[in-house]
Amino acid sequence: MLTVDGLQYSNWSREIFEQMREGGVDAVHATLVYHETTRETLSRMGEWNRRFEEHADLIMPVRQASDIERARQAGKVGIFLGAQNCSPIEDDVDMVEVMRDLGLLIMQLTYNNQSLLACGCYEAEDSGITRFGRQVIREMNRVGMVIDMSHSGERSTLDAIELSSRPVIISHANPASFHPAKRNKSDRVLKAIAECNGLLGFSAYPFHLRNGSDCTLSEYCEMIARTADLMGVEHLGIGTDLCQNQPTSILDWMRNGRWSKEMDYGEGSATNAGWPTPLAWLRDSRDFPNLIEGLRGVGFAEQEVAGIMGRNWVALLERAAAPEQGLNRVA
Amino acid sequence: MLTVDGLQYSNWSREIFEQMREGGVDAVHATLVYHETTRETLSRMGEWNRRFEEHADLIMPVRQASDIERARQAGKVGIFLGAQNCSPIEDDVDMVEVMRDLGLLIMQLTYNNQSLLACGCYEAEDSGITRFGRQVIREMNRVGMVIDMSHSGERSTLDAIELSSRPVIISHANPASFHPAKRNKSDRVLKAIAECNGLLGFSAYPFHLRNGSDCTLSEYCEMIARTADLMGVEHLGIGTDLCQNQPTSILDWMRNGRWSKEMDYGEGSATNAGWPTPLAWLRDSRDFPNLIEGLRGVGFAEQEVAGIMGRNWVALLERAAAPEQGLNRVA
Repeated sequence: MLTVDGLQYSNWSREIFEQMREGGVDAVHATLVYHETTRETLSRMGEWNRRFEEHADLIMPVRQASDIERARQAGKVGIFLGAQNCSPIEDDVDMVEVMRDLGLLIMQLTYNNQSLLACGCYEAEDSGITRFGRQVIREMNRVGMVIDMSHSGERSTLDAIELSSRPVIISHANPASFHPAKRNKSDRVLKAIAECNGLLGFSAYPFHLRNGSDCTLSEYCEMIARTADLMGVEHLGIGTDLCQNQPTSILDWMRNGRWSKEMDYGEGSATNAGWPTPLAWLRDSRDFPNLIEGLRGVGFAEQEVAGIMGRNWVALLERAAAPEQGLNRVA
Repeated sequence: MLTVDGLQYSNWSREIFEQMREGGVDAVHATLVYHETTRETLSRMGEWNRRFEEHADLIMPVRQASDIERARQAGKVGIFLGAQNCSPIEDDVDMVEVMRDLGLLIMQLTYNNQSLLACGCYEAEDSGITRFGRQVIREMNRVGMVIDMSHSGERSTLDAIELSSRPVIISHANPASFHPAKRNKSDRVLKAIAECNGLLGFSAYPFHLRNGSDCTLSEYCEMIARTADLMGVEHLGIGTDLCQNQPTSILDWMRNGRWSKEMDYGEGSATNAGWPTPLAWLRDSRDFPNLIEGLRGVGFAEQEVAGIMGRNWVALLERAAAPEQGLNRVA
């Protein structure tokens, strides 16, 4: 079964790539950066180029939706890159096309804070998409860079969906009705994502789950089944948010970047500052077959399972990540 | 006749692109940067992306040799980008592949000064290719970025040819035997360029010519004929070094970058500080047909003229700018 994980940010290694193959994962949306500048983003690209060279037998870059099928047929894991913030473009609309040319297929308009484009889900007030944000949405639509609102505020998310001519996604979050976390999404947002022909990737990050690390596989799959009723199954995928083997310094970078002198604990707290305990049924990419079984267990038909496990992600990239026709990009 | 100009750095405008079409120019090696950092180089890329969008009826990007024929068939001018210095990669070998992915097909290892890679032709002493330079040559060979030694010193040029597994070029200069300028090349260098299956693009910049701006078309074409005897006609092309409509501030940037507090006049002098007077027979790209006539006039066969005017440049890009097989680049 073609399998796509719609978000991981692991401490990439040969072992992790081998686990993906073992778990039957054909493609992964890998986070490239959180708060890196344009120049720093290029260094992260350089690191991925080295990985593609060194592990050419296991992984390959995904620059367009059809590369996922190519990866699958080559027995490799396709990697598509995304940014969890708009820092790669700094204040420069021209960097959207430059980054897309380098293979950045997905970009969040904000991490948790206000950005130059939109408002994050941790701010007290969300004033919606900024003037620069409107220009960037138009440019992302043109070059085929997918707008991801996973860490954005409600109003900004609804604004972005309204302004964008192409589908908007939430690559990794869950319904707030399942678990009321700041990062989870209201039914209103989820319906708007479905209406724009976008996609929700279900997160397996314990902070986004009812009962946290103790959330069971059947509870998780029941959540997906209920969301299918709300959004339509074709708009659902997986976005585990797996962050394997990362030191807590990475958690600090994600949460604090360069913006805070005091420690910000994000979804954690001073007494619970570290990485959450992983789910027993999704310790790493080798456990993906558990998800297939879980989805079957809550009554999804085989074609629906195939959609949720990967086909819906491929279809989303086909409709949202292809450059507009006539754009002078070499295919 | 398929026509390629192997170097221009004009003040790009619709008028200039229209002149290229009028002159039958199918592709131009356009200088992207002189001394720009990695980040600044991306802004220059962004400016080209805007030009490709705004003038999509006239120009298109060349990412591989075959794009030149595509441009010709579409009635457009293909633009391939090159750097006149190694500043786009700063001190970072990973930036070679990143820049190649963005369409930088050609890079000089030095401008006139010592660089991190090699020695320029204006330094008192040339100690050859540096440690970093060896790594970068290997990486340029791997990703298919053409090594251009137009502004380099003699020893560095010979070293680079020796170290490179792929052809090395001089995109814009002339034989020193024709006119003994620091930027022109010895017979020894020219023979080594031919032996590595590289290419010399003949410059039409008056400082590189006997009698400067008064050099005649037949003197220029006689120079080409004599060089064909030395190098073989298949290793010859055109690299006019046309810098149309540029203010003298650009000449200052080329010559002084950020490295000098005193004015350096490069090939000029305090009493001759500005742009040289253009050649009467090559005022702009509309005059390219004069070159065809001039080459016929000194006795070149029609196929040899076709080679010099463009086919040799296409063949050079085929053998020197294609990524090594197995490299994970989307074609």
